[in-house]
Amino acid sequence: MSHIKDYVEANKQRFLDELFELLRFPSVSADSKYKEDVLKTADYIAEKLTSAGADKVEVCPTAGNPIVYGEKIIDPSQPTVLVYGHYDVQPPEPLELWHTPPFEPTVRDGKIFARGACDDKGQMYMHVKAFEVMQNTGGSPCNIKFMIEGEEEVGSENLGLFVKANKEKLAADVVLISDTAMISLEHPSLETGLRGLSYLEVEITGPNRDLHSGVYGGAVANPATILAKMITSLHDENNHITIPGFYDDVLELSKEEREALNKAPFDEAEYKSDLGIDELWGEKGYTTIERTGIRPTLEVNGIWGGYIGEGAKTVLPSKASAKISMRLVPNQQSATITSLFQKHFESIAPKSVKVKVTPHHGGEPAVTPTDSVAYKAAEKAIEESFGKAPIPCRGGGSIPIVALFEKELGLKTVLMGFGLDSDNLHSPNEKYDIANYYKGIETIPLFHKYFSELSKQ
Amino acid sequence: MSHIKDYVEANKQRFLDELFELLRFPSVSADSKYKEDVLKTADYIAEKLTSAGADKVEVCPTAGNPIVYGEKIIDPSQPTVLVYGHYDVQPPEPLELWHTPPFEPTVRDGKIFARGACDDKGQMYMHVKAFEVMQNTGGSPCNIKFMIEGEEEVGSENLGLFVKANKEKLAADVVLISDTAMISLEHPSLETGLRGLSYLEVEITGPNRDLHSGVYGGAVANPATILAKMITSLHDENNHITIPGFYDDVLELSKEEREALNKAPFDEAEYKSDLGIDELWGEKGYTTIERTGIRPTLEVNGIWGGYIGEGAKTVLPSKASAKISMRLVPNQQSATITSLFQKHFESIAPKSVKVKVTPHHGGEPAVTPTDSVAYKAAEKAIEESFGKAPIPCRGGGSIPIVALFEKELGLKTVLMGFGLDSDNLHSPNEKYDIANYYKGIETIPLFHKYFSELSKQ
Repeated sequence: MSHIKDYVEANKQRFLDELFELLRFPSVSADSKYKEDVLKTADYIAEKLTSAGADKVEVCPTAGNPIVYGEKIIDPSQPTVLVYGHYDVQPPEPLELWHTPPFEPTVRDGKIFARGACDDKGQMYMHVKAFEVMQNTGGSPCNIKFMIEGEEEVGSENLGLFVKANKEKLAADVVLISDTAMISLEHPSLETGLRGLSYLEVEITGPNRDLHSGVYGGAVANPATILAKMITSLHDENNHITIPGFYDDVLELSKEEREALNKAPFDEAEYKSDLGIDELWGEKGYTTIERTGIRPTLEVNGIWGGYIGEGAKTVLPSKASAKISMRLVPNQQSATITSLFQKHFESIAPKSVKVKVTPHHGGEPAVTPTDSVAYKAAEKAIEESFGKAPIPCRGGGSIPIVALFEKELGLKTVLMGFGLDSDNLHSPNEKYDIANYYKGIETIPLFHKYFSELSKQ
Repeated sequence: MSHIKDYVEANKQRFLDELFELLRFPSVSADSKYKEDVLKTADYIAEKLTSAGADKVEVCPTAGNPIVYGEKIIDPSQPTVLVYGHYDVQPPEPLELWHTPPFEPTVRDGKIFARGACDDKGQMYMHVKAFEVMQNTGGSPCNIKFMIEGEEEVGSENLGLFVKANKEKLAADVVLISDTAMISLEHPSLETGLRGLSYLEVEITGPNRDLHSGVYGGAVANPATILAKMITSLHDENNHITIPGFYDDVLELSKEEREALNKAPFDEAEYKSDLGIDELWGEKGYTTIERTGIRPTLEVNGIWGGYIGEGAKTVLPSKASAKISMRLVPNQQSATITSLFQKHFESIAPKSVKVKVTPHHGGEPAVTPTDSVAYKAAEKAIEESFGKAPIPCRGGGSIPIVALFEKELGLKTVLMGFGLDSDNLHSPNEKYDIANYYKGIETIPLFHKYFSELSKQ
């Protein structure tokens, strides 16, 4: 272990500089205007994998953004770890809320502020550097395959096709991903589940043009008002979702499982003050940990319609729209929920408007068994490096591809995340603690070590 | 009369060319970036008033956009008509819906398409040309004062101050305005009332930053969802407005008055097909004519929050906002309604969010007596020029300044509008029929003639 620590110590500054260079690429996958930067980002990662000692490194083209592949096969008889990560990031908007530019990484009290600092460039790049560390400290104890994609934030559609088409090439014993959070460095944790996703866009059309709100107001259905009405009706007074059949497939946890889950440290006062809110909100009968972990949700991600410029315009808008996404839990199916939403939303629209529902993308929920060799290896790695066994948690986020790995490659995933919930993922001022970055680089080689050892038993 | 027709006939093309020149100025008062164009528009009108023969023409500066004044005093013993109009226009957005550029007037089957074609440049300029006609066909039978402002679309605040400060200068016997609609050239009508206005902007703030909808979704109140809920609660199942006290001051019309009102020709099938809607909407127990004329309304003019760009962003927004305006009827008071709304909206906000309500501007409703000399003069003018007596109607729009004229100058207003409800006021492809433009120029001198005659009786 000490030689690993020594190597990291000796290369600390370079490891940080390389991450900064990576963070400077505005690789936003949701917006086509960043296409060129996305391609440059893929090339940069390929170059770094090669210089770290990976073989067969290639930037694999897809119908969308390319996938970076690289491998190191030390011995076919040894277990193989498939490392997954993504180099694309969320849009940086709203820009005015960033204290420093999103694509100009800046360090403030030990934290790197930049879009993608944690999700997922910072965490993905830990694996590239951990690989370099292993290559320079006796070599990796397992075979390693890297698969770094550029469309995670928009649904990983092309990765899905890539996986289906390259089952041989991607054959492995486990998938290792750092794209989630732990409670804190003092309370290391391992996520044992992820929520699925169903994302749609809705458009309500009333009159065929914007109208004078004085001449027509009061006599014509206002699409903004109708959309508000329809969105409101999607939750009941207990904040249960009202879409018929929505909860039918939800896997309910046992009393014991819920108790175990709620043992995780959670400070409500700190949680509220961090978010600047006076009161929490959510589905009646569940704790915050449960609402964000084991329960499905429905959120409005964006809403717009009518005049939103400076000043006042007395218009009755022709259209109003919203982006709405639902987080799904085991055993809900993204396709099923998407069509349930679509049917329901169309059915509740009054005759006085037209409604259009357009599915964006989806992903399936996933659960990681805590009794697997891979999970135990992650546990031991964290225990050794943090001096504390990790707490098993359910993550609220979605990595749609995890379910696909299981379906197509028959592989379980270990979610060894080093981020924090407070890292402002998808928000302005996204950050990643430098300490977590280095801690990850030191811990990952231990996972490979224990995965190799435990696999032999 | 014939010599008036002859003069109009002989100058038709020039009258149209001058209006086109006026329409090319993008004099949008709601957006400060058009300030320069607004000033040029005022100068243009001053120049045209002068060349038409008006005296004491001046561009009066205000804290906002200037007011153009001009007069022709033929004989202090004669009645005086104060002509009011406005040269500012609504914002042209959404631009992509215009078939031809909003500030490049274009004629298609006898209609002028341009922002302001009807509201109010086209109708206001009829008075400038009618004045020129009178000057060249024996002179005006009444004294005339022009007051053309540049802030009608944003609340006429500075005009209010100007009127208070210039009561002597503006002394008259009646105010004449063409800024409303008639049913059609076949069914000429005169508006006998206008609705008041209360316009506010609301902002709901949840968490202090945009959040990852997976990590926090389900546990934190979503401002877009809460705003939708609050907006929905402003109407009950009969589309009555739920703000306590909102209807307290509403002047209810008698059964007879309502019957008279509903005698106006109204073709529901044509109304719906013009708007492209399958079903009308509105307050239970009232007809469309009543909903848009004698009943107060509450409309969402704009709504926005969260991610509204291309593609998908799984964000739980920090803020959501809306522009909301209410149309008021006699005897509602704009200030009262504004504070009732503010109090109510703040009171219904759940503890999990913060709410900010910002009043934009307001205006008072107004009614024109149908037994006045001025109204009778307008009736006779229209009857002579259209061959048909005008139908008295209640207008749904607002000209806040009308109530102020009565309060400050003690003057009643005659609303002699030549536009049509289908002229797309405040909408893309605003239009004004060339026939209505010329008809107005021919009819206005008749109003002055009969107002002078009837005043003597």
